[in-house]
Amino acid sequence: MEERKVTMDKIINLCKNRGFVFPGSEIYGGFANTWDFGPVGVELENNIKKAWWKRFVQESPNTYGVDASILMNPRVWEASGHAQGFSDPKMDCKSCKQRFRADNLIEEYSKGTVAAEGMTNEQMEAYIEEHKIKCPHCGNHNWTPIRQFKLMFETSRGTVEGEKDVVYLRPETCQGEYVNFLNVQRTTRAKVPFAIAQIGKSFRNEITPGNFLFRTIEFEQMELQCFCRDENAFDQYADYKKQALKFAEDLGLNGERLRFHDHDKLAFYAKAACDIQYKFPIGWEELNGIHHRSTHDLSRHSEYSGKNMFYLDPVTNEKFIPTVIEYSIGVGRLALALLCEAYDEETLENGETRVVLHLNPAIAPYKVAILPLQKNLSEKAKEVYALLSKEFMCDYDEAGSIGKRYRREDEIGTPFCVTIDFDTLEDQTVTIRDRDTMQQIRLPISELTSYIAKATKF
Amino acid sequence: MEERKVTMDKIINLCKNRGFVFPGSEIYGGFANTWDFGPVGVELENNIKKAWWKRFVQESPNTYGVDASILMNPRVWEASGHAQGFSDPKMDCKSCKQRFRADNLIEEYSKGTVAAEGMTNEQMEAYIEEHKIKCPHCGNHNWTPIRQFKLMFETSRGTVEGEKDVVYLRPETCQGEYVNFLNVQRTTRAKVPFAIAQIGKSFRNEITPGNFLFRTIEFEQMELQCFCRDENAFDQYADYKKQALKFAEDLGLNGERLRFHDHDKLAFYAKAACDIQYKFPIGWEELNGIHHRSTHDLSRHSEYSGKNMFYLDPVTNEKFIPTVIEYSIGVGRLALALLCEAYDEETLENGETRVVLHLNPAIAPYKVAILPLQKNLSEKAKEVYALLSKEFMCDYDEAGSIGKRYRREDEIGTPFCVTIDFDTLEDQTVTIRDRDTMQQIRLPISELTSYIAKATKF
Repeated sequence: MEERKVTMDKIINLCKNRGFVFPGSEIYGGFANTWDFGPVGVELENNIKKAWWKRFVQESPNTYGVDASILMNPRVWEASGHAQGFSDPKMDCKSCKQRFRADNLIEEYSKGTVAAEGMTNEQMEAYIEEHKIKCPHCGNHNWTPIRQFKLMFETSRGTVEGEKDVVYLRPETCQGEYVNFLNVQRTTRAKVPFAIAQIGKSFRNEITPGNFLFRTIEFEQMELQCFCRDENAFDQYADYKKQALKFAEDLGLNGERLRFHDHDKLAFYAKAACDIQYKFPIGWEELNGIHHRSTHDLSRHSEYSGKNMFYLDPVTNEKFIPTVIEYSIGVGRLALALLCEAYDEETLENGETRVVLHLNPAIAPYKVAILPLQKNLSEKAKEVYALLSKEFMCDYDEAGSIGKRYRREDEIGTPFCVTIDFDTLEDQTVTIRDRDTMQQIRLPISELTSYIAKATKF
Repeated sequence: MEERKVTMDKIINLCKNRGFVFPGSEIYGGFANTWDFGPVGVELENNIKKAWWKRFVQESPNTYGVDASILMNPRVWEASGHAQGFSDPKMDCKSCKQRFRADNLIEEYSKGTVAAEGMTNEQMEAYIEEHKIKCPHCGNHNWTPIRQFKLMFETSRGTVEGEKDVVYLRPETCQGEYVNFLNVQRTTRAKVPFAIAQIGKSFRNEITPGNFLFRTIEFEQMELQCFCRDENAFDQYADYKKQALKFAEDLGLNGERLRFHDHDKLAFYAKAACDIQYKFPIGWEELNGIHHRSTHDLSRHSEYSGKNMFYLDPVTNEKFIPTVIEYSIGVGRLALALLCEAYDEETLENGETRVVLHLNPAIAPYKVAILPLQKNLSEKAKEVYALLSKEFMCDYDEAGSIGKRYRREDEIGTPFCVTIDFDTLEDQTVTIRDRDTMQQIRLPISELTSYIAKATKF
């Protein structure tokens, strides 16, 4: 497969310079690897979310959406196990007071040859001591013992005096589906197998987020929980693997840069788990996960809430707790993969290089840019803009040479550029240029809407 | 104007029974007036957001979207003033330990005849003492003095040992636009007046949220900040008042239940502020706000960040800090208004009552329901479902009499019901029933898509 020209730095720079993604709170020096989506980034993000919802909710019979609160009753996180066990092994450098994950220190020191994931805290401490691993920040070897550091952000309500009732920012969205299982089944009269889907933000107090949008303390998930009979669960699992792969490919990721990766270790309740990995510029990394979670989730909520989380089969009258298959993917991480995939630098006939994002037109931020060839064509161009912006996100640009304007649109992945020239005033036709082929054709203004709609549909 | 049949209780019950809105974490007894949107609620919510974005971003030249992080650098909230001053006057009942807002206690006691808003803490304490106002929870008069209670939820990062670096959940989204003002202007080359728009969640640690979706501790805002020359700011302000009213009416709110309400008191920096109020079943209450914020916001961020938040006019070469006009509306509150407006109980010819939501078809959760007249028509019905679900959110229902199924769709506001009967198998036509008129017409399957698309467009 052809070597790609994309690097993480190029993507980060393009994102910042063209308005996809800015560092969060940048004027204050940023904040903890948070990122803000800019004018074109928010459109990309919204288009990805719309495409996912269309595929997995709108076009999927028996899939129902929810939008649950980020702040949930703290008992939810006792039932899920997060309140007790969701933490990372942390060490503080006694010299510079910086905090690190012990497993990361070992994996970085050993350049990935030692899998710290399987080690106990004592084993990790011994390894760090034996190899005199130094603080990446100040260079000293002066560590505290390992302590478990909670990954859930904590806050509190304080509605009763003196009581600091702890509230968590949800570290995953799926609990919103589990706690609403009975409500959704009751109101939709859904029959197994059925799924509940959600798009929403989660928060994890990662000490070392990084790699741009790849790992952030605040991230948006698109995920669904399929409730089924246990005897059908592996078929559902296989089916979601297929659907997840197809979705990634249909959005534009190259199948040769996608692969399944089974988890080596499973949670005690899980029956199967696999990722789809994408070959990012930083290597093969998880893009999404598909999990066979047995009846664990609804059983735990039955136990902790005292509510029977049963499904009653209307035909056989059987009562049982459904098994859950989960499919989950992050909006930011998928956006990053799609940007990396789409990025190209092409040498033009005149020797110049054009940077272009070959984004799937369905997720491109702007569907079309309207470009008057000269300033005195603005009035007509604005008329066309007003017409098309009823249907599509449109850009409008009258600054600089037409070549420069094409380059700007190529860099943000706009699939079509419509040029207004003097003939337009005479015959109501325009030229429309294709981003990928750079070919132009002439079309009546009246045909633009249907032409663009057809070419940008997901 | 005709008396409405809607009450808050009816809306809450309908929402819960038909899958619009469930109490958050309900199986654990709920949580702090949080609400989860169910299968039809999330579609309503998404359609409202799409309509707003289409109107105020897509179709508005010079308006650019962003999606900023919820967690921001804490300095943002020093610049905004929230870290110092965003709090409510609270009293604790020493008998039962419940916490209340002193101003609420006075307003409830006086049935709204005393405006506690304008009183000092000392005046409020004196009034409560003088009138021996009792605790609404336990009935005792046994209060602590007033203390200021912070409305921002606090959490912490903890990346440096021993340091509890405080982080806030944003109490408003607009700071995401202000901190990105330079980035957005630079990447879009926007000229004043231009606006930055955002849809996202905010959090306020309200002690006494209430009235269903009207006031919640977690809420989603749709808002824009328009940056303009100070001499044009009042014109912009007037223009957004007009646009905001038109949007509310276009979505379906009756103009007779909408009114402008100028604020009596302004923040020290503000030049003008008004709400649009809607006549909810609980009375006239704020639906959205429009504010003339002077140059306060960008000036403060200039001061606190040390970055020059100037706009440089490319024609005149003037450098100035733009004045901000803000327009902001809550998704949940607007959804509540639209549900109240749409709700009706109609007496049918046979004497039965039908409950119907006359929602604008553009925001109705399902655009169409596909109903096979009998079970042995399912196959054909599913074919039609597969066809239409490529374009629209569709419901599918084959349970119960056709009359019952119509009632179910009426209750969730589905504008069209398509019935598959035996003639369909012969001539590929269906009946399509209009929710509001209950009239049916016969249409070829091939014409359904364009018929429904036209009728459900915003």
